[in-house]
Order: sequence, then C-alpha cells, then structure tokens
Amino acid sequence: MNDLIEVKYALDTFYFLMTGALVLWMAAGFSMLEAGLVRAKNTTEILTKNIALFAIACTMYLLVGYHIMYSSDAGGFMPSLGFLIGAEHTPEEVLASGGDVYYSARSDFFFQVVFVATAMSIVSGAVAERMKLWAFLLFSVILTGFIYPIQGYWKWGGGFLDTAGFQDFAGSGVVHLCGATAALAGVILLGARKGKFGKNGQINAIPGANMPLATLGTFILWLGWLGFNGGSELKISDIGEANAVAQVFVNTNAAAAGGVLSALILARLWFRKADLTMALNGALAGLVAITAEPLAPSALGATLVGAVGGLIVVIAIVSLDKLRIDDPVGAISVHGAVGIWGLLAVPLSNVDATFSAQLLGIATIFAWTFVASLVVWAIIKAVIGLRVSEEEEYEGVDITECGMEAYPEFIGSKK
Amino acid sequence: MNDLIEVKYALDTFYFLMTGALVLWMAAGFSMLEAGLVRAKNTTEILTKNIALFAIACTMYLLVGYHIMYSSDAGGFMPSLGFLIGAEHTPEEVLASGGDVYYSARSDFFFQVVFVATAMSIVSGAVAERMKLWAFLLFSVILTGFIYPIQGYWKWGGGFLDTAGFQDFAGSGVVHLCGATAALAGVILLGARKGKFGKNGQINAIPGANMPLATLGTFILWLGWLGFNGGSELKISDIGEANAVAQVFVNTNAAAAGGVLSALILARLWFRKADLTMALNGALAGLVAITAEPLAPSALGATLVGAVGGLIVVIAIVSLDKLRIDDPVGAISVHGAVGIWGLLAVPLSNVDATFSAQLLGIATIFAWTFVASLVVWAIIKAVIGLRVSEEEEYEGVDITECGMEAYPEFIGSKK
Amino acid sequence: MNDLIEVKYALDTFYFLMTGALVLWMAAGFSMLEAGLVRAKNTTEILTKNIALFAIACTMYLLVGYHIMYSSDAGGFMPSLGFLIGAEHTPEEVLASGGDVYYSARSDFFFQVVFVATAMSIVSGAVAERMKLWAFLLFSVILTGFIYPIQGYWKWGGGFLDTAGFQDFAGSGVVHLCGATAALAGVILLGARKGKFGKNGQINAIPGANMPLATLGTFILWLGWLGFNGGSELKISDIGEANAVAQVFVNTNAAAAGGVLSALILARLWFRKADLTMALNGALAGLVAITAEPLAPSALGATLVGAVGGLIVVIAIVSLDKLRIDDPVGAISVHGAVGIWGLLAVPLSNVDATFSAQLLGIATIFAWTFVASLVVWAIIKAVIGLRVSEEEEYEGVDITECGMEAYPEFIGSKK
Repeated sequence: MNDLIEVKYALDTFYFLMTGALVLWMAAGFSMLEAGLVRAKNTTEILTKNIALFAIACTMYLLVGYHIMYSSDAGGFMPSLGFLIGAEHTPEEVLASGGDVYYSARSDFFFQVVFVATAMSIVSGAVAERMKLWAFLLFSVILTGFIYPIQGYWKWGGGFLDTAGFQDFAGSGVVHLCGATAALAGVILLGARKGKFGKNGQINAIPGANMPLATLGTFILWLGWLGFNGGSELKISDIGEANAVAQVFVNTNAAAAGGVLSALILARLWFRKADLTMALNGALAGLVAITAEPLAPSALGATLVGAVGGLIVVIAIVSLDKLRIDDPVGAISVHGAVGIWGLLAVPLSNVDATFSAQLLGIATIFAWTFVASLVVWAIIKAVIGLRVSEEEEYEGVDITECGMEAYPEFIGSKK
Repeated sequence: MNDLIEVKYALDTFYFLMTGALVLWMAAGFSMLEAGLVRAKNTTEILTKNIALFAIACTMYLLVGYHIMYSSDAGGFMPSLGFLIGAEHTPEEVLASGGDVYYSARSDFFFQVVFVATAMSIVSGAVAERMKLWAFLLFSVILTGFIYPIQGYWKWGGGFLDTAGFQDFAGSGVVHLCGATAALAGVILLGARKGKFGKNGQINAIPGANMPLATLGTFILWLGWLGFNGGSELKISDIGEANAVAQVFVNTNAAAAGGVLSALILARLWFRKADLTMALNGALAGLVAITAEPLAPSALGATLVGAVGGLIVVIAIVSLDKLRIDDPVGAISVHGAVGIWGLLAVPLSNVDATFSAQLLGIATIFAWTFVASLVVWAIIKAVIGLRVSEEEEYEGVDITECGMEAYPEFIGSKK
Repeated sequence: MNDLIEVKYALDTFYFLMTGALVLWMAAGFSMLEAGLVRAKNTTEILTKNIALFAIACTMYLLVGYHIMYSSDAGGFMPSLGFLIGAEHTPEEVLASGGDVYYSARSDFFFQVVFVATAMSIVSGAVAERMKLWAFLLFSVILTGFIYPIQGYWKWGGGFLDTAGFQDFAGSGVVHLCGATAALAGVILLGARKGKFGKNGQINAIPGANMPLATLGTFILWLGWLGFNGGSELKISDIGEANAVAQVFVNTNAAAAGGVLSALILARLWFRKADLTMALNGALAGLVAITAEPLAPSALGATLVGAVGGLIVVIAIVSLDKLRIDDPVGAISVHGAVGIWGLLAVPLSNVDATFSAQLLGIATIFAWTFVASLVVWAIIKAVIGLRVSEEEEYEGVDITECGMEAYPEFIGSKK
C-alpha cells in the first residue's frame, strides 16, 4: 500500500513537472509571437522584455508571490505577506497522509511560477514599440510579485472568490483577464504608436515584420496550452483523473481548432482575405476561451466554445482600433475580451457554476487589476516616464534601448 | 490489485498524451519547414494553409473520421459511417476488464487526431506557391474526414489489410505514403510552378527564402517523431512494453542520424556541395523509413534503414525533377518514395512480415489514395479551380490570398 | 510486489525518455542560437554543421562512445574499447533484481547519446564563420567517439575521478567544460575572423544577423535543460526521488532567471544598454552554473549561483575579446568559464564535495580535452586544413561550402 502511494506520488509529480515544462515553453511562444508582430526596428527590445520579464516573474514569485497566493487565510480578502516557499513534503508525511498529499511541493511551485510568467507575457505585446524598457520591467516586478498573486489568492489560494463559487479551471480570469487588464491600464496611460491613428479618424495598419515567427509563436502556445490546461487538473494517477486529463487535452486542442476556423472564415467574409494574423489570434482565442472550463464540455462543445472565441477576437480587434486603443498584437482582445467569454461560458457546461458568481469573479479581477495597475503605471510614469521620446520611437527602440538591431543585415529593416 | 490497474491506466494514458503532444508539435515543424523552403512572396499563404489544415483535420476527424477509422467491422473493406467519438471508459469498466482496457479513450482520440493532421501537412508543401488557398482547404476537408480514415481503417482499424498481415507500426504507409500520394495526385493536376522547368528541358532551382526556418522545422519534426513512433507502441506500463518504447526511441533517433549522414555525403559527392536541404530531407527520410518498423531492428540496423532512406530521397528528388513533377519541398520523395522503402524494409527485421503483404498494403494505399484524391482534386478544379492566375503567381500568393506579406520590411522579398 | 516493480520500471523508463527528448531538443536550440549570432552569409553552413554533428554524435556514440564510457573498469584511468550497446534487461532479470535494475538499458543509451551531442554542439559556435565544414565534421567524429567518452568514463562511468570524490551532477564539467575546452583548442589553432581585431588593438563587434532566432535558441535550451538536469537524477519513482527531481526543475529554472537578471543589469551599467545577447548568454550561464549541483541548493541559492554565472559570462566575453580569442557566440565563456564556476560552487551547498576534488576534476577534464583536441585539430590542419581561404571567408562560407544562401531574397544579406 505504501509502495503504491509512493509510485502515485511520483507519477503525479512527474505529470506536474512535464505539464509545467510545457507552460514554461509558452514564454518562447509569446516571444516569437510578439517579435513577429512588431516592426523590425522594435524587435530586439521586445525579445529583451520577454526574457527579462520571465526572469523577473520567476524571481519575484519565488521571493514573495507564491507565499501571498497560497499561504493566506481561507475565504479571505487580505493576503498575508511572507517570503520564499515552504518545506518539501517528507516521505513520512506523505505516507502518514494515506495519499492525501500526492505530489511534491516543489513541483507545485514550478507549475505555478510558469503561470505568473504567462500573465506578465500578455502585457508586453500590448505596450510594444513605444514603452521604455525599464519602465516595463519595473511594472513586471510589481505585477508578478503582488498584483497577480493577490487576485490569484482570491480564487486559487482559496480566498473569497473561491468561496463565492467562482469557477476558473485553468485561468481564463486569473491569468488571461488579469494580464489583459494590466495591459489595458498601461496602454491607456501610454497612448497609441505614432502613425497608428490619423487625424481624420483613419486607422493605419502597421504590419508585423515576420509572419513565420508569429506563426511559430502561436504553435508554441498551442502546444504549451496542453500543459496549461492539462496540468490544471492537478492529478492524473487514477482512472477518473486520467480520463479527466485526457478530456482536457482533447478539448483544449478542439477549441483552438474551432477558433482558427471561425476567425479565418469571418476574416475572409469581412475583409475578403484569409488574414493569417486573424487565424493566429483565432487559435489563441479558442485556447483562452476553453481555459475557464476545459473539462466539462464534450469535444464538440469545446470546438464551439473556441469558435465563438474566434469570432469575438476578430470583432474585438476591430473595435479596439475604432476606440483608438492601440494594441499591436491584439493581446487585450485575445486574453481580455475572450477571457471574459470563457468565464461566462462555464455555466453552459458546468452545473456547479452560476452566471452571478462568474460575473463577480470577472468584475473583481478586472477592478482590482485595473486600479492597481493604473496606480503603478501612473507612479512609474511620474518618476521615470513610460514612453520613449518621439525621436526614439521613430528610430526604433532597438537601438536606443538595447544598442543592437534585430536584423542588421536585411536592408530596409528600418521602416 | 485494483489500485495497480488504476495507476497503470494512468501511466499509459499519460504516456499517450505526452507522445501525442509531441506529434501535435509536428504541425509546427511542417509549417516552419515549408515556410523556409518556399519563396518569401508565398510564405504567409503556406503558413495560413498549415494552421488551417490542422484545424480542419482536428474538426473533421472529430466529426466523422475517427468513427470511420475505428468503429468499422473487423476484417472488412467497407467502413461504416458515424459521427463523433464514443464514450469514455468508466472506472468500473476498466477494473472489470482486469486491466485489458488500459488507457483513456480520449487519450486515444488525441493521439490519432494528430496523426491525420500529419498526413494532411505532407500535402501542403508539395502544392505550394501556386494552388488556391480555398481549393486546398476544401481538399483537406475530404482527405481528413474520409480518404485518410478509410485506408486507416483497413490497417489500424482492423480492416482487410490488417487481416492480410500487412505490417505498418507507426504509419510509413497509412500516414506518409497516403499523404504523399494525395500530394502527387494534386501536383499532377496542378502543374509545375512558372519558371521551374525551361522550354529546352532545363531544370531551374528555386531556392527557399529562409534556411534557419527549414532547419528548425526539421528539428521539430525529429523531436515530434519520437512521439509519433514511440507512442505507437500504445503501452508502456510493464517491463516488456517499457523496453519496447525505449527501443523505438533509440531506433527512431538512429535512423534520422543515418539519413542525415548518407544524404549529406551523397550530395557532397554528387553535387560537390554539402547541400543543407538534402541533409534536412535526409533526416526526414530516415524518420519516414524507420516508421514502418521502429521496434524490431537493432540500433545499428535502424541507422542503416535510415541511411538507405537518405540515399533514396536524394535520388528521388532529382528524379522527380527530371520527370518534371514539381514538388517545392520534396514531400513526395520524402514521404512517398521513402515510405515505400520503409514498408519494404519491414520483413528484413520483423519475422511476422512478408514482402507480399507489404506490397499488397503499398498497392492498396497508393491506389485508393491516388484515385480518390484525383477525383476530389478534379472536382475542385472543375468547380472553383485549383490554380491561381499567372499574374497572381508572379506577384506571390501572399498578397492575393492573404492580403499581407510575410516579411514586409525586408526589401527584395519579392522575387 | 512484482507488479509494482514493473510499473516503477515503466515510470522510470518513461521519465528517462521524456527528459532525454528534452535534451535532444537542445540540438535545435544550439542551431538557432548560433544561426542567429553569425552573419547571414555564414548561416546555412552553421545549420549544416549543427544537424550533421548531431547525426555524427548519435552514430559514433552508438558505435564506440557508449561502450567506452560505461563499460570500462571501475576506478580506472584507461578505458576499454568495444563496440555497440549491450543487451536490454529482460523482465526476468529486472524482477530477480528486486527493483535494483529499474530502467531500460535502451532508455539509458538514449539519455546519454543526447548528452554527447550537446557537448559537440558547444564547439560549433566558437569556430563559426571561418572553419572548413569537413574539418569540423572530422573533429566531431573523434570528439564524440573518443575524447568525450573517455573523460565521461572517468566521472560518470565510475573511473578515477568518481573514485576521487569529484562531483558533477549533470555535467558542468563532463559536458560543458569539455565542449568549451575542445572549442578553445580549435579557436587557438584557427585564429580570429578577418576584421574582428584591428591592427591597433581595437575590437570590432560583428553583430549576429537574426536576434529572434538567437532568442528562440535560448528558450529552447532553457526548456531542454530541464531534461538535462532533471533527468540526471536518474530515478523518479518514489517520494524521495520525485521530490529531488522537482527540486532540480525548480533550481534549474531559478538559476537561469538569476543569470538573465545579473547579466542584463551588469550590461546596462557597464555598456549603458540592455544588451540582449548578454541577457541570453546570462540565461545560459545560469543554466551551466547550476548543472554541477542542481539538487542541493535552495531555490534562492540556485538563483544566486545562476546570478554569479551571469556576471562571470559578461566579464569572460569581454576578457576573451581583449585576449584576442574570437568566439562568435560566446560559447567558451558560457560553457567554459561558467562551467568552472559551477563546479567550484558545488561545495557551497553539497557537503559531500570538496574544493580539492573539484579542482582535480576541472584540471583533469581541461588538460585531457585540451591536449587531445589540440592534437586532433593539428592533425586535421596538417592534412586538409582548418580554415577556409580569405576570399571564401569574405564571400561567406554558405556559398562555398554548401552552395546555397540562407536568406537569398533579403537584399543586403551579404555583409
């Protein structure tokens, strides 16, 4: 019996580590997606932001974030502050628990730390091509150390949103809406890129420099999302749990497929072209949409949830442009607008969910993240400034911030 | 005892999901490989095709393909039609089976659905740079929903080819030859790219735009193939099965290595240059070659099977050019010519295989796929046309089909 | 009881195969990193080198290397020569061992073979842009077949360094220092690229052509390193081992994060720019640093070990330039200088380690690899020459060695 507890503990830990590795891989996905969708002259800087924010997220979450999110009082609102991560479970404790303690505490930290990095990755794309590098990195210290963990505590740490019945399986709200909201607050203070919106109301497309990179990034995210959702079942070591994880894999993939198809067809009908960036955003929208509840729907239901996400993202991107909110990669639409759709779709398949609890969760996550982020962005703006100078923006932030071009030999890369 | 059945079921399911995730990753590999090997002006379109075909494959196989392939009569020829996927195994059923039911039905679907996408990915490269996007997507609906599942049923669904003793471990025939044959039918109706073949019989090389992408795609496929072949053992949870999976990993890797070396050396001797694209196709040829039987050979034997594949692919690519069959990425050579070699090599190491059964399988898969595909391509040609206009081909399909360039800032990208 | 041995054997084998797959993926990481950091005109050749060296490593290690490394006498200095890999463990042997034999012999080979390829990948970057392709491939035959396995035997094969108490968990020395030392020997005989060092002592930066590729390569290596270190625990199937693997995952990730931050901040202070290539090398330095002992430190300790690595790599890169040793990608600094730091840091957290034994290991690996490599490089130089002609170097090795450009359509790619 004890031997069986041991091997199940090992299997669940291994499952956590491998799905966590897939989520870590999403950092590369965001980097490639964003590097592909910005102009060549701002590519080195967005890459620098992405690798640096990942490092900051890992370090800040280790220092304070994980403690805040998972060591605070059950059902509460105010988190408790503390540092570092707790002790590992000893074999004696695990065996004494009879298998109730069923995976390594370190594997849990590893899985959670890559989630906070995902949330922060969402922000970098939306503020691309005009925000100061170090302003961004400063914000990422605060978001990953405090803003994200506090709202994460409210749901996954067992705080008041969890008590209130808010359902969010893998984080359409806790991760994606949170990241998108922080991005929205930043974009509002930051303003649009020069040339994006004309004086007479016209909207100018600013094409990304490298479509293969953007596509690669999307495929990386698609793969990584299997870990993101699949690992969030948190256990695999018996028949029922293994079936659940398999259902989550199937549904996550199906939703992404649905998102691609609906976004591509809508773009074809609306814009008369098979718009690749819409197809890519459709895939991501399908993934965000299913993240709140990837277990309860059938595979066909998941396809439909993703397909609706794909429609929403196209409409949201066009709408944000009309609102003159400039989001170079569509992150606010993908993770924010579709994240809300995902949360609202939960009651359609999960009988434990209610629209009222979902709305409470959406409102809470949005309000907290928006206000907290706005304050932090505003302080940074006052102290060191958010935006590069007009001349630097024209030259491209690669040279001014990082001292190197991304593609120094491809003539015409300055545009 | 029941507890042990539970944990073995969980392990086998997890193994299926992780190897399936590796196969899903191959979609990114084909995308990058093909995007690297076409010209810049046709890159956005090939990326769009790749992500869209993956989404179509996932959806069509869910709707009808999986049912056709795995719910039809044993030993038969005519598949039965049906929709969606069956019920998951309940814990009670699994335990009552004493472990004969040993993995989640959903994990099986997940593993199979990424295979059909692989077959379809093979087609997109061969018809690149001149086929209409929506003609291609229409074909992919039929191939992934019907053509592939029907021949898949004949072997893996327990149909007449399986009864006849045809051996195809992971799909040199069912996946690779099928995809290559469908591509060949399309290419014949489609014709060569403008400028590929001169009036006086000369053959013009049309270099791909981005070699790092092509190399990345090959490495992705190499990695993904470990799941493709490794997962096809279908079980890992006892000593004998674990040993088998390990042997498959070792052999798959060894065959790819053998293919690289033989193709690179042959290219050096023949063309006087260390031709990178031949090395890449050599790797893929090694992988295709070993796919029909990655378990029975020794690691050295696998290296040799792969090395012969590497020689064949170089010869096949040159020969297809001489036959004025234009395959921009070499897909027909890699997956077709070498797929046949892989199937014929099975009896060299597997005593259960016979050349006659292998030839029956090759002939059946080729004949069915070729005729069915030719009919479908011909209907599409008659109704909406297969080929873009000469002017569109000259301008590049990125602008005309997708409305965006892949590399808008790299001057000279229109060639 | 026997059933439990079976399932644990299966789990440990699967763990080995999946972590080995992650290490295999590092081959793509090195390829992309190096392709991004060289000039466009030398990109096809570095890609060819990378895929060919991987194939050579797999084949040579199968033929002789694995036998040398793991079949020689315990505690010895002289390895025994032999060919191919031994027999697989039969189920009877495993059960008779009572679980002491706990994973497939083939899975062990698979895990080890991807390590030797990693060592060889380190070399290719340092000698980039000027070494003859076939001289390099010839060297890789010797390194992967003999030089690496012999020093590997001394530690991991149970030779005299292991007996002497030298500690190297996953290969800061056996893999990284070995690869860097072989590279150093080659670079010394090869000389610097034309134009790197001016006559009056000035050092000219030669920017890499493609920063997104370099960043992608770094993320791939970051992911793969989880397998590199995580798999080196060699077992996961009980509570203690599962905890250990989880700790290794957490620490490996933490060290990479620490390396990014320290290198980025130091570069900002020193060069006044957020130098992306230093951030990338900082990540790799953090990973190399923690590789010698990723289990014993706390996560915070691992962050610090990585952060010191990040400082060292920046200083080492600047210092090598001053010494007029030209390493286009910084491989000698990352894997050599930081590899030594990693080995020396082991006694800080692991009470079984001593500085004297660590110094013995460093001196042995360096001396053996340097002398053996220097002899081999010198013989190759005498027989076929190491360096391309001055004209070929100016034109770029892509055309002269491989007959194709990496980016034929991006005007200005010849620089």
